[in-house]
Amino acid sequence: MTPFRRSLLVHWNECDPARIVFHANFIRWMDEGFTEFCRARGVDFAAMQRADPAFLGCPLVDVRCAFRAPARHGDVLAQEIALAGYGGGKSFRLAHRFFLPDGTLAAEGEHVRIWGREEGGALRALPVPQEFIAALG
Amino acid sequence: MTPFRRSLLVHWNECDPARIVFHANFIRWMDEGFTEFCRARGVDFAAMQRADPAFLGCPLVDVRCAFRAPARHGDVLAQEIALAGYGGGKSFRLAHRFFLPDGTLAAEGEHVRIWGREEGGALRALPVPQEFIAALG
Amino acid sequence: MTPFRRSLLVHWNECDPARIVFHANFIRWMDEGFTEFCRARGVDFAAMQRADPAFLGCPLVDVRCAFRAPARHGDVLAQEIALAGYGGGKSFRLAHRFFLPDGTLAAEGEHVRIWGREEGGALRALPVPQEFIAALG
Amino acid sequence: MTPFRRSLLVHWNECDPARIVFHANFIRWMDEGFTEFCRARGVDFAAMQRADPAFLGCPLVDVRCAFRAPARHGDVLAQEIALAGYGGGKSFRLAHRFFLPDGTLAAEGEHVRIWGREEGGALRALPVPQEFIAALG
Repeated sequence: MTPFRRSLLVHWNECDPARIVFHANFIRWMDEGFTEFCRARGVDFAAMQRADPAFLGCPLVDVRCAFRAPARHGDVLAQEIALAGYGGGKSFRLAHRFFLPDGTLAAEGEHVRIWGREEGGALRALPVPQEFIAALG
Repeated sequence: MTPFRRSLLVHWNECDPARIVFHANFIRWMDEGFTEFCRARGVDFAAMQRADPAFLGCPLVDVRCAFRAPARHGDVLAQEIALAGYGGGKSFRLAHRFFLPDGTLAAEGEHVRIWGREEGGALRALPVPQEFIAALG
Repeated sequence: MTPFRRSLLVHWNECDPARIVFHANFIRWMDEGFTEFCRARGVDFAAMQRADPAFLGCPLVDVRCAFRAPARHGDVLAQEIALAGYGGGKSFRLAHRFFLPDGTLAAEGEHVRIWGREEGGALRALPVPQEFIAALG
Repeated sequence: MTPFRRSLLVHWNECDPARIVFHANFIRWMDEGFTEFCRARGVDFAAMQRADPAFLGCPLVDVRCAFRAPARHGDVLAQEIALAGYGGGKSFRLAHRFFLPDGTLAAEGEHVRIWGREEGGALRALPVPQEFIAALG
């Protein structure tokens, strides 16, 4: 299946005094993009959580990001997300890439996420549903 | 009673390409300062919410802020908050001021807040407890 | 002229433990929406600042926002912005409104902005260009 | 030399509807903590940038963070940062750890940073000054 793609306008407040995007915004966009990826494949965490308040979506357990080229205020970035690994267990990996308007790679990163539920006041990782992996992959 | 005061270091990411604080950070600091004000006066919303999950603290119903002089990366600001009005009903007002290191007024604003509880899936404003007003005032 | 309209997906991280949008995000969206409003009318601050690094866009001098109904994770909000006042001087006003998916008013606010330039290390308000007002109005 | 330590109050807006800290805030705190680490060792990026506007501080080229235990609204976290590697070249590594009030590890991460200067409109990595490494180490 093709990766998920969305475009993203860089806003003034997302840039810092060096006049480039402050890095934590890429981390936030990775998360927001993941949610939009899921919605685009028919997985609506907001609706699932309304139906089961203890369901916590896919909490992040590990993130990394490498910054290759600066993005600037007014740039329209292309964000690309793909399922990068699932070994049948309780976590899965996503690959993230951001491109500048001229096609240059701006940043690339990775998520490790679980399928989470609150049980007895604590976060518990459940087996990742096959249909969910199929929807992303 | 004297107003609450705290100091605040302006971080790099809170400034924009004009090299001054992006305004929405003042709005966030007003909220964070209010919580610290309450803590300093013995009102711990986090503990109260653990004891009563339906308690929602003091939701904001109205905010305004005027920006008088720019603050910059590395500035240590003085934030001052005072109870500005309570008419015995279901809301109260707070006055906020931020000062630059040289004493110049950077921003001044106001909050209107209520005492909130989730009831039947909706936010409900309850009478503001007298002891809470006394603690702030 | 009709107001500017855009739609906005509420992300997980924009909501707080009360499971509603944290208010400072509306303040940020007001600013981002203003930039998109300008772009939609052919005013590109990013390009203008590349051409003249001392040009600072339209710094905000005053903001207010009233919160009428909570917005939640997964809601698609309608944001509406209109020029609300210009008296021929050095500032102008914008009216902002946000609507929930069912049409309920979620928040309404106002901006007072200037046309800013850095001169001698300080921010200076210049007369607001007629063509800019015409483009927005 | 001992690592840098600071404490950090978790604010309401830094938590999400799962009532835990949204992960990108740890990424932001890593950056803010690094600046405070430098200030505590006598390195003031704000002053250095005022003296040389083309100096860009220590741009981040790579970040990773693993989330071990959730932090909540009202928690006072202990943040610890240490120089983790420098091979004499153009980058250095920092190790970050965050602890819950009871001493549990909440998150641990790493930065790879450079010493940056804007030259000809582009970001250039310069040799990391020995005195800077000595101050951190």
